[in-house]
Amino acid sequence: VARRIRVVVCGFGRVGRSFVRLLDDTRARVERSHGLALDLIGVGELAASLLDASGLPPAETAALYETTRGFAGHPALRPDWRGLELVREAEADVLVETTPTDIRTGEPALGHIRTALGRRMHVASANKGPFIRHYRELRELAAKQGVALKLSAAAAAALPTLDVAETCLAGTEILAIEGVLNGTSNFILTRMRAGHAYAAALGEAQRLGIAEPDPTLDVEGYDTANKLALIANAAMDADLVPEDVERVGITGLPADMVRAAAADGRMVRLVGRATRDGDGRVRARVAPEALPADHPLASVDGAEKGISYVTDTMHRVTVVGGKSDPRGAAAALLKDVLNIYRGAIPR
Amino acid sequence: VARRIRVVVCGFGRVGRSFVRLLDDTRARVERSHGLALDLIGVGELAASLLDASGLPPAETAALYETTRGFAGHPALRPDWRGLELVREAEADVLVETTPTDIRTGEPALGHIRTALGRRMHVASANKGPFIRHYRELRELAAKQGVALKLSAAAAAALPTLDVAETCLAGTEILAIEGVLNGTSNFILTRMRAGHAYAAALGEAQRLGIAEPDPTLDVEGYDTANKLALIANAAMDADLVPEDVERVGITGLPADMVRAAAADGRMVRLVGRATRDGDGRVRARVAPEALPADHPLASVDGAEKGISYVTDTMHRVTVVGGKSDPRGAAAALLKDVLNIYRGAIPR
Repeated sequence: VARRIRVVVCGFGRVGRSFVRLLDDTRARVERSHGLALDLIGVGELAASLLDASGLPPAETAALYETTRGFAGHPALRPDWRGLELVREAEADVLVETTPTDIRTGEPALGHIRTALGRRMHVASANKGPFIRHYRELRELAAKQGVALKLSAAAAAALPTLDVAETCLAGTEILAIEGVLNGTSNFILTRMRAGHAYAAALGEAQRLGIAEPDPTLDVEGYDTANKLALIANAAMDADLVPEDVERVGITGLPADMVRAAAADGRMVRLVGRATRDGDGRVRARVAPEALPADHPLASVDGAEKGISYVTDTMHRVTVVGGKSDPRGAAAALLKDVLNIYRGAIPR
Repeated sequence: VARRIRVVVCGFGRVGRSFVRLLDDTRARVERSHGLALDLIGVGELAASLLDASGLPPAETAALYETTRGFAGHPALRPDWRGLELVREAEADVLVETTPTDIRTGEPALGHIRTALGRRMHVASANKGPFIRHYRELRELAAKQGVALKLSAAAAAALPTLDVAETCLAGTEILAIEGVLNGTSNFILTRMRAGHAYAAALGEAQRLGIAEPDPTLDVEGYDTANKLALIANAAMDADLVPEDVERVGITGLPADMVRAAAADGRMVRLVGRATRDGDGRVRARVAPEALPADHPLASVDGAEKGISYVTDTMHRVTVVGGKSDPRGAAAALLKDVLNIYRGAIPR
């Protein structure tokens, strides 16, 4: 018989709704392979929340929200609750956090996560915001409370990064991390290699919905720096905030420089790089680099992402791919929830 | 205070000795990051074994064996014990199995592993042999006994394969596996692309110690088929024996075919491929394939290895790299041992 896990989801945007739909789509498989029944019992949004300890039908709840942009008239409606009240009151096992990121304050997710950990709920977050300035605090709070804090979806959605370091490279020392962590920049650089100017490549990315109307966060390397700091903090026990990351973007990178590198067999990528110094400190940097063709991140094309770990005993291990859309992020959240409950010892 | 884990090692060849040396090299790190003290208490070899419940000094024991090709005069010597007697008698928590593989019978490792699981010891094996014909039996025995059976080092040494499927892709359905799993064949194909004939490339690989004097297992695809069957059994819940794997090797592959593919932007690799049919059955095949340049395994050069998983919700995730030498295999064993004892919930 499957163990029942009560899940609350804060944030019901595209990632949150994809996640609850995935609960439906994978119910039979998860029960069979993991022995878990993941039950959605609450949804927290900005204006109102739902809570039903006996369970909410995931896909129906997502469809209702899409039709009505809210939960008006729902029998489980808590009209005066935002996410924070939901996390305070729900008797849940796991918080899945997908509210929009305010990189500056980390709110409202920071409050959700502090509260959840304080109540001994496990947390899986697709939200980087709270970890930009509060990684160590939240990590220590989770440890003190004896609960799990999982950030795969925040680090790079469906591209495995943190769990590779934690599980696949367990026992190694990670000497360096190199990452192509921003799909938008990588798409632009890939188009520039084909001969397009920066502005034209950016315009194409915007038309395809790959780049935001204001692309600064992506093309100036802020997003890469945020992800790199998060991964280095988790995988290399660094203590970085984004300002510690030296940062050069790709705005205005001359197209002929990209083409010249390509003619030379090299590929220009926006690389986030963290290395451990002789004194043990981790230094981090984001900048366009012309990678030689045999570098394992050279072939990470288009909007794809990739990460390469340099270790002492396993040499270099590189991971590439993973869907970048909301369903990919949702799949990363689901995996984090499953891994909270799975030990290495088979059932 | 670290939790003491008693380890016995069967097989004291290059991998076994590398593993025990790694216990010394990583002792402080493993204690700090995992809270474990891995204590070597026994070593089983063909002619004689050592057992000392209070612990054996790993590096010294390896050095002694290298100097004397045995344990003559050692105070912990059990002169009439082979590995099987050691596993029967030792009060240990984990068996690390590194004896030479007899692919046909799986012995002596099969007996070691059955006995260890029967005694409720966890097992980490660098040895594929026992799993070629007995994967399901041993998996079920481990589950029944409530202990872990970890095969990372057997699947592809330091290239992460099984733990990627189990952890990083948890909750997805793996629709297909593609792998460049044999470094020797890949080295030969890489040299053929540079214009060398098969025989010359093989000769070079033999001189470099990459290929065996009799290279059949590697170049005829048997090794790839064995690994592919093991990975598909674990990651896709298949039930394959190597004879189920259709197999075409690279012997006598014309150099101009490899060069023509390269001129066309494609790379010939010996690919192991497992796919799930419409009827749910897993079909597996090993054959040289001309991969397009943008295939993530196209850039796996030289003696490197790589594996690509095609999933339903995360799309394609590819892992490349990982040291292929005995120390890489030892690092994979160490990671498996650590992962046996590590839950997702931080200490």
